[in-house]
Amino acid sequence: MCEASAYLVDKDGREQLFLKSVDKLTVDGGRVYLVDIFGRQEQLRARIKSLALVDHKILLERVPEE
Amino acid sequence: MCEASAYLVDKDGREQLFLKSVDKLTVDGGRVYLVDIFGRQEQLRARIKSLALVDHKILLERVPEE
Repeated sequence: MCEASAYLVDKDGREQLFLKSVDKLTVDGGRVYLVDIFGRQEQLRARIKSLALVDHKILLERVPEE
Repeated sequence: MCEASAYLVDKDGREQLFLKSVDKLTVDGGRVYLVDIFGRQEQLRARIKSLALVDHKILLERVPEE
């Protein structure tokens, strides 16, 4: 399976695990919606910073509330 | 290997293949930078619309020039 773990990166570059085994991710209006391979859904106000798919990593950054 | 194919989605929802076998992707300043598993690099003015990792798909949308 090719799911990935989503991490939140803070401004000092530290990575904090947000959700494991992410299958689907949708970006909409400053929010990121994630669904893992078990159907668990999470969302947060963030943007995608980078992906490293062979390493199974999604890096997210929080964005300020509008 | 858990690379994915990146597709450009137009406003009618049609998907056009942009780059296969994407490993790394970085989002910066309205541009998306992609590197495939062979080291080939591409970039475009776009944003990530969604990911479907188990299906090996990255969907990108063009964004207007500033």
